[in-house]
Amino acid sequence: MRLPLSGLGWLTAGLVVAACSGGKQSSAGGGSGPAPSGGVVELMKARGLSEADVTAALKTYTPTGKFDEYLTFASGGHSGQVVVIGVPSMRILKYIAVFTPEPWQGYGFDDQTKGLLASDSHGRNLSWADTHHPALSEQGGDYDGKFLFIGDKANARVAVIDLADFTTKQIVSSQLIGSDHGAAFVTPNTDYVIETTQYPTPFGGGFADPKTEYKTKYRGAAVFWKFDRAKGRIDKDASFAVEFPPYTQDLADAGKLASDGYAFFNSINTELSWGGNMEGNPPMESGSSQNDMDYLHVVNWKKAEELVKAGKTEMIGGMRVLRLDVAAAEGVLTFVPEPKSPHGVDVTPDGQDIVVGGKLDTHGTVYSFAKMKALIDAKKYAGKDDFGVPILDFKESIRGQVELGLGPLHTVYDNQGFAYTSMFLETVVAKWSLKDLKVVDKVSTHYNIGHLTAAEGDTVSPDGKYLIAMNKWALDRFNKVGPLLPQNFQLVDLTTPKMTVLYDLPIGLGEPHYAQMIKADKLAPVDVYKPGEDAVTSQLSPNATEGGKERIERRPDGVHVYMTAIRSHFTPDVIRVKEGETVHVHLTNLEQAYDATHGFAINSYNVNVSIEPGEASDITFVADRAGVFPMYCTEFCSALHLEMAGYLLVEPK
Amino acid sequence: MRLPLSGLGWLTAGLVVAACSGGKQSSAGGGSGPAPSGGVVELMKARGLSEADVTAALKTYTPTGKFDEYLTFASGGHSGQVVVIGVPSMRILKYIAVFTPEPWQGYGFDDQTKGLLASDSHGRNLSWADTHHPALSEQGGDYDGKFLFIGDKANARVAVIDLADFTTKQIVSSQLIGSDHGAAFVTPNTDYVIETTQYPTPFGGGFADPKTEYKTKYRGAAVFWKFDRAKGRIDKDASFAVEFPPYTQDLADAGKLASDGYAFFNSINTELSWGGNMEGNPPMESGSSQNDMDYLHVVNWKKAEELVKAGKTEMIGGMRVLRLDVAAAEGVLTFVPEPKSPHGVDVTPDGQDIVVGGKLDTHGTVYSFAKMKALIDAKKYAGKDDFGVPILDFKESIRGQVELGLGPLHTVYDNQGFAYTSMFLETVVAKWSLKDLKVVDKVSTHYNIGHLTAAEGDTVSPDGKYLIAMNKWALDRFNKVGPLLPQNFQLVDLTTPKMTVLYDLPIGLGEPHYAQMIKADKLAPVDVYKPGEDAVTSQLSPNATEGGKERIERRPDGVHVYMTAIRSHFTPDVIRVKEGETVHVHLTNLEQAYDATHGFAINSYNVNVSIEPGEASDITFVADRAGVFPMYCTEFCSALHLEMAGYLLVEPK
Repeated sequence: MRLPLSGLGWLTAGLVVAACSGGKQSSAGGGSGPAPSGGVVELMKARGLSEADVTAALKTYTPTGKFDEYLTFASGGHSGQVVVIGVPSMRILKYIAVFTPEPWQGYGFDDQTKGLLASDSHGRNLSWADTHHPALSEQGGDYDGKFLFIGDKANARVAVIDLADFTTKQIVSSQLIGSDHGAAFVTPNTDYVIETTQYPTPFGGGFADPKTEYKTKYRGAAVFWKFDRAKGRIDKDASFAVEFPPYTQDLADAGKLASDGYAFFNSINTELSWGGNMEGNPPMESGSSQNDMDYLHVVNWKKAEELVKAGKTEMIGGMRVLRLDVAAAEGVLTFVPEPKSPHGVDVTPDGQDIVVGGKLDTHGTVYSFAKMKALIDAKKYAGKDDFGVPILDFKESIRGQVELGLGPLHTVYDNQGFAYTSMFLETVVAKWSLKDLKVVDKVSTHYNIGHLTAAEGDTVSPDGKYLIAMNKWALDRFNKVGPLLPQNFQLVDLTTPKMTVLYDLPIGLGEPHYAQMIKADKLAPVDVYKPGEDAVTSQLSPNATEGGKERIERRPDGVHVYMTAIRSHFTPDVIRVKEGETVHVHLTNLEQAYDATHGFAINSYNVNVSIEPGEASDITFVADRAGVFPMYCTEFCSALHLEMAGYLLVEPK
Repeated sequence: MRLPLSGLGWLTAGLVVAACSGGKQSSAGGGSGPAPSGGVVELMKARGLSEADVTAALKTYTPTGKFDEYLTFASGGHSGQVVVIGVPSMRILKYIAVFTPEPWQGYGFDDQTKGLLASDSHGRNLSWADTHHPALSEQGGDYDGKFLFIGDKANARVAVIDLADFTTKQIVSSQLIGSDHGAAFVTPNTDYVIETTQYPTPFGGGFADPKTEYKTKYRGAAVFWKFDRAKGRIDKDASFAVEFPPYTQDLADAGKLASDGYAFFNSINTELSWGGNMEGNPPMESGSSQNDMDYLHVVNWKKAEELVKAGKTEMIGGMRVLRLDVAAAEGVLTFVPEPKSPHGVDVTPDGQDIVVGGKLDTHGTVYSFAKMKALIDAKKYAGKDDFGVPILDFKESIRGQVELGLGPLHTVYDNQGFAYTSMFLETVVAKWSLKDLKVVDKVSTHYNIGHLTAAEGDTVSPDGKYLIAMNKWALDRFNKVGPLLPQNFQLVDLTTPKMTVLYDLPIGLGEPHYAQMIKADKLAPVDVYKPGEDAVTSQLSPNATEGGKERIERRPDGVHVYMTAIRSHFTPDVIRVKEGETVHVHLTNLEQAYDATHGFAINSYNVNVSIEPGEASDITFVADRAGVFPMYCTEFCSALHLEMAGYLLVEPK
């Protein structure tokens, strides 16, 4: 490569100490003209940048028109969305609306997405979610770039996002789970999407007083949602669940390669604490922190699948459930003790080990799948819990423990045999060797790191290179913006001998929990929709309208307006109805040019949709108020965008 | 300043041609260890960066813990929010929820913000807006960093945001306006916040057929919302409006210094086109583009204020209105012709000139306030329009025209006597001299620039330095993310002889229209709320609860839960109610530590609030479904955050 360098003068303009001219000093700030010359040293002085800063800038800065090497998909936490971030530039490329209505995308405003949000949402009109763990679809344990799944902790739902168009296609929930946390996680070929209870509730619904019936009626569960890759949708009827004791299950991970067919779940509350701090009980923070050990749940899901096929299930809340006694007796569910307040559970790339971080522990515990499987196969148990689940001996199950420091949480991996664990209390990332379980490096994060993600760092073939520390507190990192602060994603360089922070990205909307980072060239989204495509069904809309065939039809169920949009007008651009009539606008964007999006809004009727090129969308509303209501294109589509307008005319009764 | 340089080796590691060692070549890629050394030249090669890229990187990269020099407040367009961006780092620091519910902020989920969103919203349950023009509060024509106002084009509302805590405090609307565009703009001391009609509707509401009554019944208006700075709220009763002909008014700007007391409004449709393209009319894009000239509306608002005080108004839709005939007769409203499809209207820093861009014109037209005022004072009119409004002669009103190019829209200013105009069709920013009205430079933008903003660039004292081109199409600038693309904010360097693009910022949520850039040190937001503060009223909440005084009270209107939150528990953490009871949770965050935010969510009841340190919030819901519902903290507040949980227990009837 030939460099476009004009010579050293540009690099060193403003340098105080000249290094190769016999020690003769040049004057500071010396540019060639009245404006700064843009020389490296001059800019370092002007902006107070260190050598490390310059290196970081040049490792992250991505010039106009150059693309990022990786895309990171982060949950938006209680924003209910997914955030898409380019790496290494650390620029947010998109928020994907998932569980929360979002008008820029028209999400939750047309019939299609209103229906999607209402579907399978416990019969409730829910307008938010607490998205926690995104899971990219996998083939052979590697991301394939086709789909993304994400769980809603608050309302126990799972969503399917198609990465062909970066939009949400399906939302599912079960009646077994009152809140989830270990969701979503996929099995290595995306046969199943896993969703696990967090806070237990009476199994299958209903009321039960925890004071008297917590142990007998409250239960957790792992739901194995069957994914139909050809359809790109979860098949609810082919899904099943495994019942768990009410131990407040936490995170989950699916086995891979050596441990394929198994899945692993943490729990944090073998004490069966349920709160009640004004009823004479301790709050859960102390009530559930009494025991030295909780239980790692080892689930043989391939065995479970066989038992389900064999009909050894019970129908509860519309789902086939493998009951606890069956799961325990048949070797589907086995426990292994895990140290104080476990949180992350992360299978190593080769599938041979499972790393667990105990929040109130100073270790990372490395479980050996081979050892555990040998014990399970030999039925060599150390005992059983109160629910009859066999327990393996802790020491016989582990390969060892790593002395990590304070508050280990989650672990991801690189391609050099190293693991990276987030340390909440110590507020660092610890790098350690999987081979000898020794810490080799730590890097400070700012502040209170929760999850972390590395380039393909939870797959069978991690890339190394980049890691993102997902910090919960930002404090003094950014300009002040009032009492509610952004989170702080810090990009960490994994290519240098010592880890270094390259970039601080404030997350100014949402509170991400987990993220996954995928090589960008694995993604191949479409540019435009097929003419007349419904973005939710991914099929031709029955109401798609061709240019020249626009019309208004009056039918028993209301006024149907078959409308098109093209720069810079709607046809028709005037809708005349009588007060009280139901209006169905069937709107098709006739454009096939990339980025030629239109919007459609009606004053005070809460109507606003975004229609991407080719897309067909339906909007239904009752014209319950007489008057004159401007309607217009909300997306700056052309020079005469402001003139892309008309009127809804509602004649009084 | 002493530079932390280790010597030239670091700068030039990897340089192909050594410049000061007798032409001896060093080998490419030569670092000191196995990993890249991070040398400038080496990184340039590795990442394909040009000299200009390096300069841009070092002019924008802002290391961890270093702050941005400016904050930019951008409208979120039809996302209904405001986006806060640091400059020069171009990082989004916050989305401020304004008109759209947003669960991360708990906005639209507690009683306070539900009430705020419902207030003055045309009696509708509106869950979105099309935010267009943010206006920072001013003193003497300069930003003071205290408040921000923004208009909702779709539903004709104006919101007040307090920059003490970066949250929305008030939403107002009038019955005079069915959609606005020229909103919000402030007078130089923020006496008034201006909101102007875009698409005219029957004045004061009601139905009228545009086919027969457009000219007689449809009207525009400018509302002058009176701002009470001490209260930090708009005083609706002290506000007034000026009636306009139905000319589709567009953007607005308030006079300053020389032109203080005046305001200027564009119009784009003297043709009185209203659509009806399936009723034999042309669509508005051609119907409103027939005339060579539309009318710049020159309004003497100080005079209007006097007439309002003198009682020369009519009460329409609950607001005092200066009718068109009065405004025309009393010299409040005067027209001046402006060339084809005018869009931006921007008063120069000294207030002496007003620059108008005509979308279908190739000029920027520079009106002289002094000339116009002399004509108005002398009542020297060239004629009257059909509505009786006096019209000034075009040539006698202008100082001149600038040959700009294709599609001039908006203009901002620097501190060197230059103006910068966005050119939509040419997709450039044109820099021109205010002195001699000549273009001196153009820079390409990518693509389709709409608005632009410069550092304090629409005040009486612009800073120069930075400009942001707010581009509408992104096309090939970023990794693909499906058919709906981000917008592209390009940071432009104004300190160099030729303008250069420094940074591309994708806007992955929302479609910003206008933005204002303020010096960051003018802002002084609070870190935490006063103990028990209500964030909407900014007063002590009557329901604020002190630690130790938590309680549950049963009253005729339901169950009142006086709850507190502190790391890591709620008190009480269990709520027991009977099915059908109304529950009022009065929740106070007892923390006073910066960034110690808690959330509070209840499974499937659509309850989620964010309570910042000190904040008191009220949540009301009907426990209409029996069962057990986990409730928990949604903000990762501490190591035992997951244990900050409890239950809502709803006993069946």
